[in-house]
Amino acid sequence: MTHEKHPDLHGNAPDKSAVALVLIDVINDFEFDESAERLLRYALPVARRIADLKRRAHDAGIPAIYVNDNFGKWRSDFRTQVSHCIDDETRGRPIAELLKPASHDYFVLKPKQSGFYSTTLDLLLQHLQARTLIVTGFSGDICVLMTAGDAHLRDYHLLVPRDCVASRDERENELVLKYMERVFEADIRLSTEIDFTAISGPFSPRSAIEQMQACRTS
Amino acid sequence: MTHEKHPDLHGNAPDKSAVALVLIDVINDFEFDESAERLLRYALPVARRIADLKRRAHDAGIPAIYVNDNFGKWRSDFRTQVSHCIDDETRGRPIAELLKPASHDYFVLKPKQSGFYSTTLDLLLQHLQARTLIVTGFSGDICVLMTAGDAHLRDYHLLVPRDCVASRDERENELVLKYMERVFEADIRLSTEIDFTAISGPFSPRSAIEQMQACRTS
Amino acid sequence: MTHEKHPDLHGNAPDKSAVALVLIDVINDFEFDESAERLLRYALPVARRIADLKRRAHDAGIPAIYVNDNFGKWRSDFRTQVSHCIDDETRGRPIAELLKPASHDYFVLKPKQSGFYSTTLDLLLQHLQARTLIVTGFSGDICVLMTAGDAHLRDYHLLVPRDCVASRDERENELVLKYMERVFEADIRLSTEIDFTAISGPFSPRSAIEQMQACRTS
Amino acid sequence: MTHEKHPDLHGNAPDKSAVALVLIDVINDFEFDESAERLLRYALPVARRIADLKRRAHDAGIPAIYVNDNFGKWRSDFRTQVSHCIDDETRGRPIAELLKPASHDYFVLKPKQSGFYSTTLDLLLQHLQARTLIVTGFSGDICVLMTAGDAHLRDYHLLVPRDCVASRDERENELVLKYMERVFEADIRLSTEIDFTAISGPFSPRSAIEQMQACRTS
Repeated sequence: MTHEKHPDLHGNAPDKSAVALVLIDVINDFEFDESAERLLRYALPVARRIADLKRRAHDAGIPAIYVNDNFGKWRSDFRTQVSHCIDDETRGRPIAELLKPASHDYFVLKPKQSGFYSTTLDLLLQHLQARTLIVTGFSGDICVLMTAGDAHLRDYHLLVPRDCVASRDERENELVLKYMERVFEADIRLSTEIDFTAISGPFSPRSAIEQMQACRTS
Repeated sequence: MTHEKHPDLHGNAPDKSAVALVLIDVINDFEFDESAERLLRYALPVARRIADLKRRAHDAGIPAIYVNDNFGKWRSDFRTQVSHCIDDETRGRPIAELLKPASHDYFVLKPKQSGFYSTTLDLLLQHLQARTLIVTGFSGDICVLMTAGDAHLRDYHLLVPRDCVASRDERENELVLKYMERVFEADIRLSTEIDFTAISGPFSPRSAIEQMQACRTS
Repeated sequence: MTHEKHPDLHGNAPDKSAVALVLIDVINDFEFDESAERLLRYALPVARRIADLKRRAHDAGIPAIYVNDNFGKWRSDFRTQVSHCIDDETRGRPIAELLKPASHDYFVLKPKQSGFYSTTLDLLLQHLQARTLIVTGFSGDICVLMTAGDAHLRDYHLLVPRDCVASRDERENELVLKYMERVFEADIRLSTEIDFTAISGPFSPRSAIEQMQACRTS
Repeated sequence: MTHEKHPDLHGNAPDKSAVALVLIDVINDFEFDESAERLLRYALPVARRIADLKRRAHDAGIPAIYVNDNFGKWRSDFRTQVSHCIDDETRGRPIAELLKPASHDYFVLKPKQSGFYSTTLDLLLQHLQARTLIVTGFSGDICVLMTAGDAHLRDYHLLVPRDCVASRDERENELVLKYMERVFEADIRLSTEIDFTAISGPFSPRSAIEQMQACRTS
């Protein structure tokens, strides 16, 4: 189709925001295997903290992006997955209810572990002009790690609040958080220690430049 | 999330098919500007032929993939767009009704002109094991051309039936078809001249190898 | 390897420049087939104009990037190709001598027609902070067109000076220039009409923002 | 340039091989910081084992691909880097001499940690028809891990012989090897335990299919 009259591709324009909150694989039926139950035990309390963080982020004007497995269902869409998790009374229902996407949230379906691989995530972040990502979700040692790694390759600044990430094994979760801190230069402070007034605010040219410079020198 | 128990990512397994039918930007409200009306005049009869072709392809076991603009609406999904075009009585309604996706069809939302840019199309085609694409849709001189170009870069064989592509200007449409024939080695025969029994059939190892070899030497 | 002490990846830092000059497939032995001679006839005078343009660009602080076929020689490098074209007395020698890369020029080997496909070009341009590309070279109707298309998808501004592009067929060259003007919004003015004092200068935060805004609204 | 007469892009045709040996960042001056010395202590004995492995791989017809940092030197090429490491008597000289590339080796310059990011590696592997990668080099916990992760996303089978990978910290190296075994399903057997007669041999359609099927179900 032609693009001449869609000057900025934005349609119902996405917010501009130097920061974006990313929720990885939180919409999940947790029905895949016996290990799901182990993960669920850690994931449920974490989901409550992500829900709090999402509320505070929204109040600060920071958009939320659901980056979610398509679970091999190439024909379905995100809303169908949300309905499945909630209406079919799956094990993932309590988490899906806590973190049910609102109409103003963004979403990206990922076919593989990294949210950047074979998806439109990077382009969406460019349109938002986001340079800092707050990464949360499951599981810490696989999809969160690989998405954070791809974000680091692309020079995004990373916050991975350590109380907003869960894995099936607590020790693996610890190791992977330390790894992201050391190698991806991720800030892993507690979600309650994130000061949104400091990092957010509407997109400004000045902050964009600072972000760009920061990104070049880090 | 973890992938151990989703061994092949396929969930409700996609068909294997050496050939895929691609429909570009057929779900469209045609409300974007005055030129939309010009395009619509050519697009409506073309949509009828695409609908015929899609029926025949389906009977031959060939999957259809809608590759459609997201029109800057990063928060909406494909089903919402279909509903918008049909229920809101847009100018694109007759085409959307003719080409309304079925539950067994695939879809990929593209943020830009090429269906391969910043989307999961290539990975979906790999999972289908498709090596030949039948490319149809609108507009021939922009999104069809750029998607076909990206397919050619990736060594897909191209059929672009010349009666299944429309642009706002008939002469531009002609030129671009000839260009795709010359440079992308596209077969631009009429849709009625496509013999599905020759090119389709279920995926077989043997045909895959032939496809791979063909692709290496062409 | 680790990256902690290569803070900005730049080593012998690339220039920052809002504009970059791109030379497509100018280093070529023109020995590939009978049509090479036809292309050569048009390419030689064009190479002289590209050489002039490159000189003026260099004086204005604008970097030149050679984006060149690897011609399937995955084991060779760019300097080897330059030597081959010049020292082996190939048909492409006069052009290679006119456009011999200097030590301050950049280069990117491309395995396929588009300079962006499966190469580091986009990342190099990001590091240069270039938003406007002056695209020149051969052949206009294939590699130049496909590289320009991929640049347009990525929101680069395009200048394609119409006297700095050659194809085997003059009419095809004309058509493709008009196409790039219409669809990719390329400025196709003569190379002598490019005013480097207006478009270049060192990278400034202000111009970066203007570039970014321009890019969003065009 | 045109591609009609370069039917398969291969020029001096790359080998077909279901397996490829990947050497990550072995050509390095190790002059970057004080930690380089720590890494060097582990890297030198590892380099000897990689050299052995490379010899055996070559005898078995398996190509070697150097995937090496460009160290921000966008204007230089791989041969220049090899010369720098050896002729300038850098700390990395003994390793560069042990692992000096031969004229039949392939190389890919990577601008960032993962060998797949913004490089032509994936396309080269497709042309080789490689589906199994033997990944070796430095440092295990950064570039090796991130390259292996990207290979896993793309469904390559991984062998990461645990005696052919070094990091600055032995314990980190251990952890990361176990991680790759668990999450990327990498085989981390000793290099001496790799039976090339079992995994190599010239590319055959049959093994290709098996590889493809294996890749779908793993």
